[in-house]
Amino acid sequence: MTLILPVIMAGGAGTRLWPLSRDSMPKQFIALLEDDLSTFQATLLRVKGAPFLPPIVITNHEFRFIVAEQMQAVGVQGQIVLEPERRDSAAAIAVGALLASRVAPDAVAVALAADHVVENAAAFRADAMVAAEFAATGLIVTLGIVPTAPSVAYGYIEAGEALGDAGTKRLKRFVEKPDAATAQGYLDQGFLWNSGNFVFAAPTMIEELTRFAPDVIAAAREALDGATTDLDFIRLDGRAFGRAPRISIDYAVMEKTQHAGVIAAGFDWSDIGAWDSIHEVMDKDGAGNVLRGPVVALDTTNSLLRSDDMLLTTIGLTDMVVVATRDAVLVASKSAAPHVKRLVETLKQQGRPEATEHLRIYRPWGWYQRIDIGSRFQVKRINVKPGAKLSLQKHFHRSEHWVVVRGTAEVTLDGSVSHIHENESIYLPIGCTHRLYNPGKIELELIEVQVGSYTGEDDIIRIEDIYARA
Amino acid sequence: MTLILPVIMAGGAGTRLWPLSRDSMPKQFIALLEDDLSTFQATLLRVKGAPFLPPIVITNHEFRFIVAEQMQAVGVQGQIVLEPERRDSAAAIAVGALLASRVAPDAVAVALAADHVVENAAAFRADAMVAAEFAATGLIVTLGIVPTAPSVAYGYIEAGEALGDAGTKRLKRFVEKPDAATAQGYLDQGFLWNSGNFVFAAPTMIEELTRFAPDVIAAAREALDGATTDLDFIRLDGRAFGRAPRISIDYAVMEKTQHAGVIAAGFDWSDIGAWDSIHEVMDKDGAGNVLRGPVVALDTTNSLLRSDDMLLTTIGLTDMVVVATRDAVLVASKSAAPHVKRLVETLKQQGRPEATEHLRIYRPWGWYQRIDIGSRFQVKRINVKPGAKLSLQKHFHRSEHWVVVRGTAEVTLDGSVSHIHENESIYLPIGCTHRLYNPGKIELELIEVQVGSYTGEDDIIRIEDIYARA
Repeated sequence: MTLILPVIMAGGAGTRLWPLSRDSMPKQFIALLEDDLSTFQATLLRVKGAPFLPPIVITNHEFRFIVAEQMQAVGVQGQIVLEPERRDSAAAIAVGALLASRVAPDAVAVALAADHVVENAAAFRADAMVAAEFAATGLIVTLGIVPTAPSVAYGYIEAGEALGDAGTKRLKRFVEKPDAATAQGYLDQGFLWNSGNFVFAAPTMIEELTRFAPDVIAAAREALDGATTDLDFIRLDGRAFGRAPRISIDYAVMEKTQHAGVIAAGFDWSDIGAWDSIHEVMDKDGAGNVLRGPVVALDTTNSLLRSDDMLLTTIGLTDMVVVATRDAVLVASKSAAPHVKRLVETLKQQGRPEATEHLRIYRPWGWYQRIDIGSRFQVKRINVKPGAKLSLQKHFHRSEHWVVVRGTAEVTLDGSVSHIHENESIYLPIGCTHRLYNPGKIELELIEVQVGSYTGEDDIIRIEDIYARA
Repeated sequence: MTLILPVIMAGGAGTRLWPLSRDSMPKQFIALLEDDLSTFQATLLRVKGAPFLPPIVITNHEFRFIVAEQMQAVGVQGQIVLEPERRDSAAAIAVGALLASRVAPDAVAVALAADHVVENAAAFRADAMVAAEFAATGLIVTLGIVPTAPSVAYGYIEAGEALGDAGTKRLKRFVEKPDAATAQGYLDQGFLWNSGNFVFAAPTMIEELTRFAPDVIAAAREALDGATTDLDFIRLDGRAFGRAPRISIDYAVMEKTQHAGVIAAGFDWSDIGAWDSIHEVMDKDGAGNVLRGPVVALDTTNSLLRSDDMLLTTIGLTDMVVVATRDAVLVASKSAAPHVKRLVETLKQQGRPEATEHLRIYRPWGWYQRIDIGSRFQVKRINVKPGAKLSLQKHFHRSEHWVVVRGTAEVTLDGSVSHIHENESIYLPIGCTHRLYNPGKIELELIEVQVGSYTGEDDIIRIEDIYARA
């Protein structure tokens, strides 16, 4: 049996699922569909166990701690490759193919997006195994999706002659996203959706990249050769990687290669590209609604209603999407869901922090969240993982009061160390040097009250940091 | 010129403007239309200055501190009468008429709802003066509203023969809320809307109540005779007032009396009974939208979008109402706005605190608001008015950490007094007796972190309270 090396592309930063998905926490890391599993984690689990090898995850350096934590949470170990900047899928797949050829030369690679939904993991694994055998013969195999509707949101694939007895065919051509009439025509002719997931032997992909996108493969090779290892991460060389042209693997290779194959996938699939597709893939109640969180809906049908925290109520809605987070609410007609991207652009232009950042900010040591702010004060809830340590730091414009509400804090204050237990507090005067560490076995939770003339995040001098931050 | 005594009825508890209006803070006290003025305050200002006397405000005892504070904020002094429970408008007007006959026997009373919107205060005053002259002749004069549309939400009035040369007419009959076709007919016949605001000499009203609703006037008289004065309030005798039948002044008197007159009001009016009428009376932008607070709307028309705190965004809405508060969001089609009442009933049945209480809880000494809650802790922001003092109290299940972020706190802790200034904190151990007082000239703001096995509001023993609370 051919071994399969998953190459998971988890560096994307889509904004069409705002306000849940934001640049600082994109959709692949959010538990959008299930209560406690992101699509990235579902993807990891889908390719866990023989014949799949431990995965290579390619992501942006900004997401490294989220990736590491989410992998650990589902018990998957693998290599994490950090892109210093976004260069589209050709560069990512080039890095994946090069790394695959080094670490598992006998395996076939499967390149997967981390933000797709696959409803039947067993069917996916079966298809991947068929595609892997096929790919071992020197083809780049696309997992084509059998369309469920004449969608204008996807590119299509026309399959050619059969190449074996397992449903494998030559890939005849890719076609761009069509208009509605053309889409219906494609459906009638048996075209497939292009899912953007590929199976290939590393040498085949490297060869085709060398032929059709030599700049991409050269930059990827140099970035990998110059990579450094930082904690558990493979950090690509930034200067070299930056020279890779921004191009998708579809344009760079798939539309040009003579070695493309396709199989029609046997699983249900969605790229959950916008809120309307989220509504589509989720289980609905008798009125066609999907309700998540504290929601009360009267006379409401065919709608997606989701709230993280506050009470969400609706009356008399049809075909709507309402997503309420603690700092931002989206109300949209379902047909307008694809325009969320435009909305987020507008918010960015207005400099609204909600456009890109969540209220809860994840850090390597845990997270913090603003819970109140006034003219000369700010209150935060801070959660520190067991064994984690914040940077040694000081502030010029604020004092801080810490009240421990769970666990134990080890506080270094101007060089002297003390332990603050649950229901105890400590005062950190303005200008002092301090550090917070959780020496315990459970999470440390504390309430921080900042008082001063300026409480912005940038009033911080990091004197020493185990996470190598500025 | 006849002196006019305003009797303002401010005890209502409508739920149709939820989530802004809640039982604990009904619509008349909320700055619904203007940024910093409630309709109660606008009503006070409308009847301020000659020929109007200082008002009598009749309200529910639960709203006494809100009423006092809002009157003070607009510089209006008057008498505040507290109803121990709700008994509908006949009992309230009976109390008003009796009190008016005692404090200003020569004046004419104008009974006004505190939750109506009048667009032109000068026109209102002119009408009230005409009606007062008219009422002085022994009639109960209704301020009839010239309809702007065939509304099915209001009762109508048919006027009879002219009774003077100032547009005053005999009131021929009241008719109930009609269906749409009937409403159009009423419009064509020149009927007026019944605004529920009346002008009368106290002896006339008392006489008519005695004739048609003797139980009501007897209970009101006894409640007033047995009233006590509590701080600045006239607190009606509860047992006596409880005997007043629940009946509206329309049914009790207006539909029966032979002494009813009407004038067609020269001002624009709305009872802002539901969110669609709020949208109607407010100034709209070019797309027909009313936006209040941090709102970004794309492709949205004829909608009311309002947010207190969090960012509210919409795409592709038409004829919708979205109201976002810090703990609850309402999304409704405008035509479904009258069903908000049903929604609130549903929420009450489910025991949701958001149905009746705001996150910010007003107290005689100021307010508090929960800003975070966890399994064994709760964080509150507390705001104490200058000179105000909380009760002497203790808790069995929680300790408290107070961090002063503005002003100065005088804290009594197990009998010893200390002053905590801005950027200082104090710890109140479980079981201690403590009291908080603001001895300063500015508001005292503090962050309270409660830690303990139970942080419910009912874990409080009040040992001493200047506001005479349990």
